[in-house]
Amino acid sequence: MKDFNKIFKAQSVAIIGASNKKGSIGNTLALNLKNSFKGKIYPVNLKEKQIENLKAYTSLSEIKKKIDLMLIAVPAKIVCDILEEGGRLGIKGAIVISAGFKEVGNLELDNKLKAICKKYNITLIGPNCLGVLNSYNNLNASFAAQSAKPGKTAFISQSGAVCTAVLDSAEKLGIGFSKFVSVGNKSMTNETDLFEYLAADKETEIVAVYAEELNEPERLIKAARKLKEAGKPLIILKAGRSLAAAKSAASHTGALAGEDKVYQALFRQAGIIRADKIEELFDFIKIFSAEISKKNLKKKSYKNLAIITNAGGPGVVAVDSLEETNLELASLGAKTKENLKKVLALAANTNNPIDVLGDALAEDYKGALQAVLSDDKVDSILVILTPQAITEIEKTAKVIIEAKKKYNKTIVAVFMGEAMVNSAREIFTKNYLASYSFPEDVIKALGALNKWAEFYREKSEKAEINFKNINKKKVEKIFTDAKKRGQKAFPEFSALEILKAYGFKTLKSYLAKSSEEAILIAKKINKDLVLKISSADILHKSDAGGIMLNVLPSEAGKKFKELLARVFKKKPKAKIDGVLITEMIKEEGLEMILGVFKDPALGSAIMLGLGGVFVEVFQDVSFGLNPLTREDVYKMIEELKSKKLLAGARGSEPKDEEVLIDSVLRLAKLIKDFPEILELDINPILVLKKGRGVIVLDARMIIC
Amino acid sequence: MKDFNKIFKAQSVAIIGASNKKGSIGNTLALNLKNSFKGKIYPVNLKEKQIENLKAYTSLSEIKKKIDLMLIAVPAKIVCDILEEGGRLGIKGAIVISAGFKEVGNLELDNKLKAICKKYNITLIGPNCLGVLNSYNNLNASFAAQSAKPGKTAFISQSGAVCTAVLDSAEKLGIGFSKFVSVGNKSMTNETDLFEYLAADKETEIVAVYAEELNEPERLIKAARKLKEAGKPLIILKAGRSLAAAKSAASHTGALAGEDKVYQALFRQAGIIRADKIEELFDFIKIFSAEISKKNLKKKSYKNLAIITNAGGPGVVAVDSLEETNLELASLGAKTKENLKKVLALAANTNNPIDVLGDALAEDYKGALQAVLSDDKVDSILVILTPQAITEIEKTAKVIIEAKKKYNKTIVAVFMGEAMVNSAREIFTKNYLASYSFPEDVIKALGALNKWAEFYREKSEKAEINFKNINKKKVEKIFTDAKKRGQKAFPEFSALEILKAYGFKTLKSYLAKSSEEAILIAKKINKDLVLKISSADILHKSDAGGIMLNVLPSEAGKKFKELLARVFKKKPKAKIDGVLITEMIKEEGLEMILGVFKDPALGSAIMLGLGGVFVEVFQDVSFGLNPLTREDVYKMIEELKSKKLLAGARGSEPKDEEVLIDSVLRLAKLIKDFPEILELDINPILVLKKGRGVIVLDARMIIC
Repeated sequence: MKDFNKIFKAQSVAIIGASNKKGSIGNTLALNLKNSFKGKIYPVNLKEKQIENLKAYTSLSEIKKKIDLMLIAVPAKIVCDILEEGGRLGIKGAIVISAGFKEVGNLELDNKLKAICKKYNITLIGPNCLGVLNSYNNLNASFAAQSAKPGKTAFISQSGAVCTAVLDSAEKLGIGFSKFVSVGNKSMTNETDLFEYLAADKETEIVAVYAEELNEPERLIKAARKLKEAGKPLIILKAGRSLAAAKSAASHTGALAGEDKVYQALFRQAGIIRADKIEELFDFIKIFSAEISKKNLKKKSYKNLAIITNAGGPGVVAVDSLEETNLELASLGAKTKENLKKVLALAANTNNPIDVLGDALAEDYKGALQAVLSDDKVDSILVILTPQAITEIEKTAKVIIEAKKKYNKTIVAVFMGEAMVNSAREIFTKNYLASYSFPEDVIKALGALNKWAEFYREKSEKAEINFKNINKKKVEKIFTDAKKRGQKAFPEFSALEILKAYGFKTLKSYLAKSSEEAILIAKKINKDLVLKISSADILHKSDAGGIMLNVLPSEAGKKFKELLARVFKKKPKAKIDGVLITEMIKEEGLEMILGVFKDPALGSAIMLGLGGVFVEVFQDVSFGLNPLTREDVYKMIEELKSKKLLAGARGSEPKDEEVLIDSVLRLAKLIKDFPEILELDINPILVLKKGRGVIVLDARMIIC
Repeated sequence: MKDFNKIFKAQSVAIIGASNKKGSIGNTLALNLKNSFKGKIYPVNLKEKQIENLKAYTSLSEIKKKIDLMLIAVPAKIVCDILEEGGRLGIKGAIVISAGFKEVGNLELDNKLKAICKKYNITLIGPNCLGVLNSYNNLNASFAAQSAKPGKTAFISQSGAVCTAVLDSAEKLGIGFSKFVSVGNKSMTNETDLFEYLAADKETEIVAVYAEELNEPERLIKAARKLKEAGKPLIILKAGRSLAAAKSAASHTGALAGEDKVYQALFRQAGIIRADKIEELFDFIKIFSAEISKKNLKKKSYKNLAIITNAGGPGVVAVDSLEETNLELASLGAKTKENLKKVLALAANTNNPIDVLGDALAEDYKGALQAVLSDDKVDSILVILTPQAITEIEKTAKVIIEAKKKYNKTIVAVFMGEAMVNSAREIFTKNYLASYSFPEDVIKALGALNKWAEFYREKSEKAEINFKNINKKKVEKIFTDAKKRGQKAFPEFSALEILKAYGFKTLKSYLAKSSEEAILIAKKINKDLVLKISSADILHKSDAGGIMLNVLPSEAGKKFKELLARVFKKKPKAKIDGVLITEMIKEEGLEMILGVFKDPALGSAIMLGLGGVFVEVFQDVSFGLNPLTREDVYKMIEELKSKKLLAGARGSEPKDEEVLIDSVLRLAKLIKDFPEILELDINPILVLKKGRGVIVLDARMIIC
């Protein structure tokens, strides 16, 4: 784990590239630090004697005092010289603001920077970033135009602009920050490094992230688990969805992958709360800040929601929004309804949503709140107010704040409108009650909170699974031999051999090179047959007319010739190895697809979905990443519509889900053992009825 | 068409139930009217001599002057007396604020109110509503706490609370209103009535609606077409999604319908722009107000978007959001790129999104804007600004306003943050430029605008289609006979007869009541057979084991007995009519489902989708409503994933889509001719390859 205390808890900071030129980055850095920091500040500038009234130095070496942190904002080409000098002087922390590295294609400079950091054991953030704020050390080592108030959220962003927007909105949102990190190019420090640090940081209770790319999923998932163990939710907005990678892939798996589906797997497995929009990220931070704290960690659920409203419409909208969450309308207890009847007008609706009517006063809200707060079946309460002629807006806001203080239950508020309700919103912000302008937003945020609570309650499973019947040596040899030959593609025959070595059940298949051989093989099998073309040049056999089903053993010779003729017509240039002959499986089963895709950022991912001809039509697939647990695979299946087919839809028998899960885990082990596997399609993998297992019917593989 | 001029253009208004009690509805109505209206106001109150310094009357009759409009806010039970009195006096317009009618189950009172309106030809809005505003007549006949500024948007709402929230937010959003109508219970006036009126209203250019239920789809679709012809977009937020209706249905079609899918059909066919959230409704009104005006109607498209930004992150987020719209990143012309290179810094990105870099000044934005505005390939421009240390926020806002004025092209803005950018946002609002806080919102709004433009360019097709081979008389007779017998359910045999009368191709089928009959029938057909149980008590034949495929003619007698035994085991109490015997179709085809569902609000809807065993698993269905055109059915198919199967996926032949469309239209005619059809499942309807048509293989029907 990297020691970020060198940065966040620095007691002395040198600003290399500090300047007196107003509006420049070097000047803003100096001013921000001077206006915040209680430790020593050493501006470094070749020409000036003073920077913003602080004594300036011409170099780091000239300072001759203990320096914890270098804040570097000089042209890219001299950044490494500065780092080298600092390294020699024993400075262990660095933030590089300067741009001009990897982001403009200058990989050489980037590599040089990394080498120096390693040589001197320097912890470095950046380059090409806005800087870092630690409100608990009064450290504003950034050129942001605004500062951050102390709070419980650590914010990490790959975009400096999103940092500035968040800082500019923070006050209105009532959000404070424990750490604020612009990670820039992430040359030495990425999000995962910070997660590891923040899991133990006592000022941080929530971690929120804007990222355009994430890496090292295995390490990330482990770091996310550490955050979970510490009771700290991790919220990420992942921007930059792109299908470019998927479009260029040749396999089914590749074509269906899409970067975003692999990220979806990462988020699911790491228990990351995903924000889909920038505003949602703000909305989520708001409710998590209000609700998550060390004392609340044991709160079981936010699931059962009571809604109190003075207007039907927004209540209806709130209920509509529940559909996309795991929240439910609480069914109120008889006692609660009695209490509601006592305090509310006769026409008021005492079912949930509770309509206190348009002429409700603060006192009516108070009565309804008390009734609902005492109900054990209610986990969370949403109070909606629309400004009617006699509505007591501010007074109602105060009633809500008091109720929250008294009961310590989750209460959120939607006061609709603008001009008339703004003052009430300010009351909420001041009192750390999450308030929103629209019902849809609060429901989504509350849903995210409940999702976190569910994840927090889940027991973490040990990822390591021990399989029998795995012959790693054999696959090693196959790959070594292939690499020697320069072979990258593995058609059916050899792909099946590899899968067999990892415990997959395959059919015994024989390669016939002539019709005579085909006749001999048919006699040996003596059952209905499947004939399949074997050729490294033919990826999709059925499209090339290269598959024949239900062939009678007696016709094997004739059909062998027919098949070759048919394939020759469609693929005259393909080099044909022969025809694979196997027994025709007549047992009822579900054709699924199992595959491997290599995401440019996240690496090898496993795909599971409905196979056969429906693969492309319904694209009913889900992904998984290593380290993969049994529980993770259950969740992959949960995401599939075809889970109903696995369970046995419309009178058909339930399928062998357990062995299918076992197969997914074996595949996970295979790609962990052999990262050189670039693409793999097992299609179809036939899932037989419960107790009968699964059979690989066809497969192909490419290594790099 | 109803004459709403009696209400909107009233020159004299009587307020029945006017009051001096501060905060009361009667008082708010009097004050609102007094503070706005230039015509005559007559408060009516039994006891008071004056209401808010206006002479008060004890009854309508006492006024003895011409009265255009009654504004009624008295207890529900005396509303009808007032209406009757007004009717007798020749008053033709009424707004009933009072609650206590249909919404509390008092249907009797509601019917009485309707009868009086019909008797005296009174145009009435309400009851149970907030009232009406017409800013072009200075008429505030509502008890809203705020008034509306004049503008081009007519706003109609089923929720009074949403009205008040919209009014409260209007100023910040920079939205003005032509008409503002709270429709309440919609006893005499629903949205469609108002659409018909607003199509010809010269002050209205956009119609925006909040609705929880819509009715009379046929009339609504026609009214929406009138709005389209007048170049007026119709934007609706439909709240109150509920699956309750679907859950109680017995048919496949019913189970898959869900209210919302039927509304989706309505919106698609009527060209309604759907807002999914309250905030989206606001967002859409904002951009439509800024962009739609009589002079802009010929603008072809908003599709090709150029993005100018001073920060990468928000640009990435904007591009991500494009995926869910019909917008595209414009490919900039060579000339544009040259111009951009001239005006921007060397490191700036002249590809789209155009990154003017973090230190961009207003002048840089201006240069980029000019370059892009001159590019013919660019339809719309999004300008993003994040507040960096030296960003000229207000100055940049002004540069954008000037550019918009000069070029009259679509420009929208996202200035991210809060405190620092608020003043710039105000500049945009004042100058009617649509500005947003987040890139996702502006892209969605711009997408909605482009969707409208696409719809506006579409030619309206004549809905009436003339079919040959339709024997309406025959079906009339079948239904008449059935009604006499009290028969509601039509199992396969009779359902097929009805479909045949409407030109559907069905298989000749014979009902065997004994194994001997089965043997005789089999001899006559002399091909492989399908045996199906025929029983009014068995809805889903396959679940009851009631279907046998591929039966040899020679085995018909034996299989007849087997089938009966099998069904008896599963459904011992079912009354069996016999076994239907038909030829087994071996021709390759796609099994689809065609059905009818009766939505509680919208009436009969047609469903089309993937049939067979996958119906429930993939729920790949879309809906259509009368009046249905050929173009509408094309769009229904477009919504299906299985459209790929229709087109011929993975080497299979393209299917007969044209005859399928014809079948959907025939079904549309059938349900128009016979609204008593409550549920109908045609499953499967086999779509053969192109040129071979479709065959109905099974069907069942229920009438009411």
